[in-house]
Amino acid sequence: MTEPLSTAVSGITLFDTTLRDGAQQEGLRFSVEDKLRIAHLLDSLGLGLIEGGWPGSNPNDTAFFQRARTELELTGSRLVAFGSTRRPGARAADDPLVAALREAATPVVCLVAKSDSRHVEKALRTTLDENLEMVRDTVGHLVAEGREVMVDCEHFFDGYRHNPAYALEVVRAAAESGASIAVLCDTNGGMIPSFITDIVSDAAAVGLPLGIHCHNDTGCAVANSMAAMEAGAVQIQGTLNGYGERTGNADLVTVIGNLETKYDLRVLPEGRLAELAGVAHAVGEIANQLPQARQPYAGRSSFAHKAGLHASAIRIDPDLYQHIDPAVVGNDMRMLVSGMSGRANVLLKASELGFGELTRDQASEVVELVKEREVDGYSYEAADASFELLMRDHLGLPTSPFEVVFWQASSHQTGQGRVSTTAVVSLYPTDAPDRLAGATTVEAVGNGPVHALDQALRGALIDHFPQVAGCRLTDYRVRILDDGHGTDATVRVLIDTEIDQHITTTVGVGTDIIEASWEALSDAYRHALVSGMKV
Amino acid sequence: MTEPLSTAVSGITLFDTTLRDGAQQEGLRFSVEDKLRIAHLLDSLGLGLIEGGWPGSNPNDTAFFQRARTELELTGSRLVAFGSTRRPGARAADDPLVAALREAATPVVCLVAKSDSRHVEKALRTTLDENLEMVRDTVGHLVAEGREVMVDCEHFFDGYRHNPAYALEVVRAAAESGASIAVLCDTNGGMIPSFITDIVSDAAAVGLPLGIHCHNDTGCAVANSMAAMEAGAVQIQGTLNGYGERTGNADLVTVIGNLETKYDLRVLPEGRLAELAGVAHAVGEIANQLPQARQPYAGRSSFAHKAGLHASAIRIDPDLYQHIDPAVVGNDMRMLVSGMSGRANVLLKASELGFGELTRDQASEVVELVKEREVDGYSYEAADASFELLMRDHLGLPTSPFEVVFWQASSHQTGQGRVSTTAVVSLYPTDAPDRLAGATTVEAVGNGPVHALDQALRGALIDHFPQVAGCRLTDYRVRILDDGHGTDATVRVLIDTEIDQHITTTVGVGTDIIEASWEALSDAYRHALVSGMKV
Repeated sequence: MTEPLSTAVSGITLFDTTLRDGAQQEGLRFSVEDKLRIAHLLDSLGLGLIEGGWPGSNPNDTAFFQRARTELELTGSRLVAFGSTRRPGARAADDPLVAALREAATPVVCLVAKSDSRHVEKALRTTLDENLEMVRDTVGHLVAEGREVMVDCEHFFDGYRHNPAYALEVVRAAAESGASIAVLCDTNGGMIPSFITDIVSDAAAVGLPLGIHCHNDTGCAVANSMAAMEAGAVQIQGTLNGYGERTGNADLVTVIGNLETKYDLRVLPEGRLAELAGVAHAVGEIANQLPQARQPYAGRSSFAHKAGLHASAIRIDPDLYQHIDPAVVGNDMRMLVSGMSGRANVLLKASELGFGELTRDQASEVVELVKEREVDGYSYEAADASFELLMRDHLGLPTSPFEVVFWQASSHQTGQGRVSTTAVVSLYPTDAPDRLAGATTVEAVGNGPVHALDQALRGALIDHFPQVAGCRLTDYRVRILDDGHGTDATVRVLIDTEIDQHITTTVGVGTDIIEASWEALSDAYRHALVSGMKV
Repeated sequence: MTEPLSTAVSGITLFDTTLRDGAQQEGLRFSVEDKLRIAHLLDSLGLGLIEGGWPGSNPNDTAFFQRARTELELTGSRLVAFGSTRRPGARAADDPLVAALREAATPVVCLVAKSDSRHVEKALRTTLDENLEMVRDTVGHLVAEGREVMVDCEHFFDGYRHNPAYALEVVRAAAESGASIAVLCDTNGGMIPSFITDIVSDAAAVGLPLGIHCHNDTGCAVANSMAAMEAGAVQIQGTLNGYGERTGNADLVTVIGNLETKYDLRVLPEGRLAELAGVAHAVGEIANQLPQARQPYAGRSSFAHKAGLHASAIRIDPDLYQHIDPAVVGNDMRMLVSGMSGRANVLLKASELGFGELTRDQASEVVELVKEREVDGYSYEAADASFELLMRDHLGLPTSPFEVVFWQASSHQTGQGRVSTTAVVSLYPTDAPDRLAGATTVEAVGNGPVHALDQALRGALIDHFPQVAGCRLTDYRVRILDDGHGTDATVRVLIDTEIDQHITTTVGVGTDIIEASWEALSDAYRHALVSGMKV
């Protein structure tokens, strides 16, 4: 494990902008309901500030703040409404978007202000003085209305490198008019840590507390945030899982992991750090984004070991090959079995699955089997349940309590639009005295052929094995294995099955997506039944 | 745009370990053929050193070096074989893995050596002195055999923080026995830039040139690599797209982008930087990994703009909201159209698609249409061709030169294993004088229902529209939209179609995967035919 820095720094506030800046990510869209659920999760993790959106800029965000007033009970976080300094040549008190900010009725408001003189002149098309007046007027007005006002200085770093005096003027205008903090934004994401350190140190001389808001266009959003903190910034803005426009924002999951375990800084309330991976995944589910397997701290692969050299050492001491104990952030160490891995991985995995200690020969044979199946496109790294069936088969243990006689799935459309899908499954229990007489045939309709097959299979099984009622398919993933073949490709299907809150995964492979799905689907029920599922 | 540092640093070598350390990633597996293709791509990009694998550790890597001798012609890169220092208590000259390194016959060898005293004692189970002797013996032997020898100091940073004197001893042993460089490895990935800077500065005092090898467990692999370079390291090890065990290795794509555009350092041969995104994608295709949309420099989303505020400014000057010109690294700016975006995005997109200037009212109506479709699960951010059909429909332009009477797809299995899939499509050209007489009905078999439908549809179209022969479906992606519904979920299908080397994407949505696929499939042909595809 990596020992943290010995000197703890304190007083850092985390500002989450998943619901505002994170929502700018390509392919990401939050409903009002989603936003309320995520705000609740962020509060449960213990983040200091939660930016909910930009009231008045779109109906969704306006509705969120309306509903939040009655439906969102925060236990520790403070809700922030985002907005902009008033329009040039107007009065803040008369600006409709400033009015929307007042109506959002949040304790904190975060105002974006231009701090790059080129943007003031080219994009905003006003004078440098009027931009400063817009900051003073809008901050002053909202402070007078009783709000705590934070100022996001847009393009601060690019602006500073072009015209440092003006960028600092904007921070000074914020300070003079009562803002509580100036947040220095790397809006275009082009900074690297050495740029950040110098500029933040300079800006700190103004005397207003500083925050940092980074984008990941150089792959340094997290490092830049930490560089700013080391140079004096006391607030870090970011998003859960690094969601955001282009390359995304600084990932608060990683920021939190680093501050807590590398800087030995308490930035979450006592006991919440172990919720980190869980909250990251829950937000990902609501955002409907594929999990990032390699995400620091929270990723499914982030504490997974494949190299045989590592597996051997881990059998001696897990800390030799991991930078922290994964349980600290709510994650787990996983041992991967693949054709690349050796006996040590198989031995560890076998005991993880409860098969006890295999002999060296048995372990070598399993490694060979896995290699052969991988050539066909199978992958057992994620598919624990299929690997268990493979092990059982190799060890001569039962792998299926039923045999399938026949299955069929059919979809058709007539006229405009209406599509109908049916499936038929016929099977008998392996121990049936008379197989023909014991066969059960069930036909079912479904939303798509895989759903129809699942319904028919479950229907045929339930008479013989009532415990399948407690078995729920929770995810279905398709992966095209060979590129450039369009719809004529080999596909790998992974199916997640939940039994008693425990999730297992099965795999199927084929050029026919339905055939591959059927394999993963029927193996899911096989595994559930032979691995001793409780009724 | 962000201006680079004014002072250029030179003499940095890039060392790619995609084929060795990158292959440790969960779910990643390279065939020998894959490795040869990737090595060729890395050479074409102009990387200095390409580590091909660990000869003798597995048959694949041994075969790679055998075939590389005759099949791999490198134009500028040098090939590296990875290995370990000899076993304790033996002689390097007698060690079978050292023999495999000699037989690999590469100009450069990279040896991993333990440099954390705890690992020497606990994992290697030998004495600290014997470990130093293993370094001297193995390096000396291979240098005498005419190889350039680099030494990867495993766990150097953790080792240094625990026992600095011993970690430096290992670097000294490498220097004394003729190694050309010591590469300091953050094997467990727990470092942050401020740790790196101090330790590299200290190690530099030994006098041997230093390299850096980082993992991304703190999200800082790229920043740590740059911190090491600023402290004096002259070689940076990493992988394409950051592939690697756990959270992955330092992403060389990002490292290259940063060194070239932020430090103004020439690390690729003249003219190659514009190949960066293309090589990143090509390696991803061979590795069969999902592209990382948010990857710095190369990601599909990395220069994509969704925020209405940004779109308005970009209409004035694209540099206001991007940190570099994306063409420099072979990427493109993209304007995203979604329910979140406003008229400015639609206006830019319409002119990108050749519809000319829409009126403000037309643009507003299209925004509303997109919002409505998004509620149903459609997404037009990636599906340009479907968005074009939607625009055509709204503007009263033709959207389909054919009408479908009927389609059907059916899969069934009898007995053990054999699965058969057939599809039927019946259609007539929209301008047929007699619709019933003009209908063409084609039945086709396929590898799976979508492939069978594609074959039947293409067969039915080709008599009327011979130009569909030039149309090729190149990718098929399925996305589950609502979580927790198993096989009963709404799915979104995206299909990529290539015509004249230009790729377009269509989208289909439904609870039936076949129905959603049919929508995307038939829209792909509709779009190809109405958008003026050449014969």
